[in-house]
Amino acid sequence: MTLAIDTDRIVAELETLAGFSDAPAPAVTRVVYSEQDRRAREYLKSLCSAAGLRVREDAVGNLFARWEGTEPNLPAIATGSHLDAIPHAGRYDGTVGVLGGLEAIRALQRSGIKTRRSIELLVFSAEEPTRFGIGCFGSRLLAGCLDASTVRDKDGKSLDEWRTAAGFHGDLARVALPAGAYAAFVELHIEQGPLLEAAGIPLGIVTAIAAPASWRISIEGKGGHAGAMLMRDRQDAFCAAAEIGLSVELAARSTGSEDTVGTVGVCDVFPGAVNSVPMRVRLEVDVRDIDGARRDGVLARIRQACDDTAARRGTRVLIEEINADAPAQCDAMVVEALALAASAHGLRFQEMVSRAYHDSLFLSRIAPTAMLFIPCRGGVSHRPDEYAAPEAIAAGALVLAEAMAALATG
Amino acid sequence: MTLAIDTDRIVAELETLAGFSDAPAPAVTRVVYSEQDRRAREYLKSLCSAAGLRVREDAVGNLFARWEGTEPNLPAIATGSHLDAIPHAGRYDGTVGVLGGLEAIRALQRSGIKTRRSIELLVFSAEEPTRFGIGCFGSRLLAGCLDASTVRDKDGKSLDEWRTAAGFHGDLARVALPAGAYAAFVELHIEQGPLLEAAGIPLGIVTAIAAPASWRISIEGKGGHAGAMLMRDRQDAFCAAAEIGLSVELAARSTGSEDTVGTVGVCDVFPGAVNSVPMRVRLEVDVRDIDGARRDGVLARIRQACDDTAARRGTRVLIEEINADAPAQCDAMVVEALALAASAHGLRFQEMVSRAYHDSLFLSRIAPTAMLFIPCRGGVSHRPDEYAAPEAIAAGALVLAEAMAALATG
Repeated sequence: MTLAIDTDRIVAELETLAGFSDAPAPAVTRVVYSEQDRRAREYLKSLCSAAGLRVREDAVGNLFARWEGTEPNLPAIATGSHLDAIPHAGRYDGTVGVLGGLEAIRALQRSGIKTRRSIELLVFSAEEPTRFGIGCFGSRLLAGCLDASTVRDKDGKSLDEWRTAAGFHGDLARVALPAGAYAAFVELHIEQGPLLEAAGIPLGIVTAIAAPASWRISIEGKGGHAGAMLMRDRQDAFCAAAEIGLSVELAARSTGSEDTVGTVGVCDVFPGAVNSVPMRVRLEVDVRDIDGARRDGVLARIRQACDDTAARRGTRVLIEEINADAPAQCDAMVVEALALAASAHGLRFQEMVSRAYHDSLFLSRIAPTAMLFIPCRGGVSHRPDEYAAPEAIAAGALVLAEAMAALATG
Repeated sequence: MTLAIDTDRIVAELETLAGFSDAPAPAVTRVVYSEQDRRAREYLKSLCSAAGLRVREDAVGNLFARWEGTEPNLPAIATGSHLDAIPHAGRYDGTVGVLGGLEAIRALQRSGIKTRRSIELLVFSAEEPTRFGIGCFGSRLLAGCLDASTVRDKDGKSLDEWRTAAGFHGDLARVALPAGAYAAFVELHIEQGPLLEAAGIPLGIVTAIAAPASWRISIEGKGGHAGAMLMRDRQDAFCAAAEIGLSVELAARSTGSEDTVGTVGVCDVFPGAVNSVPMRVRLEVDVRDIDGARRDGVLARIRQACDDTAARRGTRVLIEEINADAPAQCDAMVVEALALAASAHGLRFQEMVSRAYHDSLFLSRIAPTAMLFIPCRGGVSHRPDEYAAPEAIAAGALVLAEAMAALATG
């Protein structure tokens, strides 16, 4: 079998995909169920059809593009990632795993190989939490670990309203995949961190995925006129939020480990006028660690800070847990297949941990799973200047193809 | 002359006005140049026409409704306020001065009096800074102390685009009023503070208006993925903004005077996603004091905190002064006319200072000016539960009518 990746083609397809964006280039904004999301899906489906893959979408828009094996009743080998992008993000996060996965399948097709198992490209709906405040909702639903009826956007509009408006009408109860649906799942992804680039190593094989937790913190104070409300009478929701925000930073730093991170990414102030004392603030907080217990310690410190602020300022502070997932261990067999594939092509790799959230975290609950990382410039992600070199993407697609061939034959 | 205020009618008109809102009742949201603003203006013009007033609007939508005196070439006596409301505000701020002023004119008409000077009802465009980030832009332009070409909304859209889309096409250079256009200006307004209610006194006669200053503070940090960006590598714009926000509160409290207030009313986070380290934050800060020098001391402390935060965190902090107006002294003759009018009707009053921003601050630069305050429940304003009792509004309109009659005869 001779595998050849068409690098120019992946780059051109990434370029086309980046054009489906609600932000001007080089930024990419593509929120699930938006018009740009729809156009990106249509484009991808056209590429899959051109490659002879059989495409289906489930009731929330998870997409499955299947290349039939010689024994189609065997559990398939799957690869894939996501197409959605947070506001003002870049063009590589998620898309490298989708288009790289597709190109890996096309490379296998061109090589003339016939695999026993089918190979499927998966595109997960809404890996990013932009719309629904919860990450990986498509893969969570596939893994059967999320109740779709609870999913709402921040204005209270339900997943059901959103998905039917986007043209997805199937039975939500049938989204969860049966156990054993896949014999293996491998996700190709940019590292979103600086380690591979700094080490000058082209590939990372992920052995564990860090445990993220996120909270929505609602702070209710007392609004009023910014000129007339005396300082002594205030219960300013923004000042309370500022204290809580700084406590997140402090708690994350307090572990002394570089693997602990804590972030306030959202701060919505109500009513939000220069001459009005903030009555209500909503924060969204994200805490991650590779050590679940240590992460829970950070969360406990933040909770204590919320209580202290509420008591001192007379504001109400309500913590709503959006999610608190357990870390995932990757599957040794899949990790081994990736390592062998890299070695077969003379490509160096290092085993590493993923600190970012990935659909693989949930796929690992229903299938033997691992991830393949490629370097990205400066470790930068979720920004317009996110960048992965064409040769890095090609190396990832090549090793992915090699590993899937091995897994699909076994 | 027997003056009688039609309380039920003012209450009914306030009720109707409150219906022109982009927020559900009891909240009122009515931003200048919005459709609801247009409907409120149309309603008011219909009331003015029914009262036989001659209505004109200038190039930015300031409205003038004139009741001709027997010597129409003399400078007129004016009253008025504003119709716009910040997001999720109440129904009394501004509108009491507009509908109370109109009812005062109608009461004079019903009394059979003929005044020498004409009496005009003024409605100022955009007293609230919601759209353009600067308060009192209509009255600033009337007073000739604002360059209209500099006025833009936060997305960069110019006043010129907004006002022409709203149907105001005149020459901006002709908005400023000639010196001596009015012999006096009196603004009726709810207190927006707790003093009158607490003292059980029905009227406040304002002798000075506090000096407000507002800043836009832009904080530029380094964005990135909330999972992958290590804490030690961060320049988190929200954490910097939180520190600066708390410094505003601390600086305002540090003067030890209850007349100093400092508020962060706006905090916009970019990109604003739970899993993204904030790259950019924009704060809007409002600092007021009746002592201009003391206020400047507070601003200096906030500026120092911005510098400290920038140096410590490596974020860029840019301070843009939106405005820093001098306090206004009210005119002794107009204050005296209001005091005599209150006494004539056996109504108690106290002299007081206004801490809130008012169009009177700018009218005072071109006309002898004073303000008449009525109590509002709990001192609450800029909130849906803002409330002034019908009898309080009627008392204000009565004294306003009496004072205007005296001023228009003199």
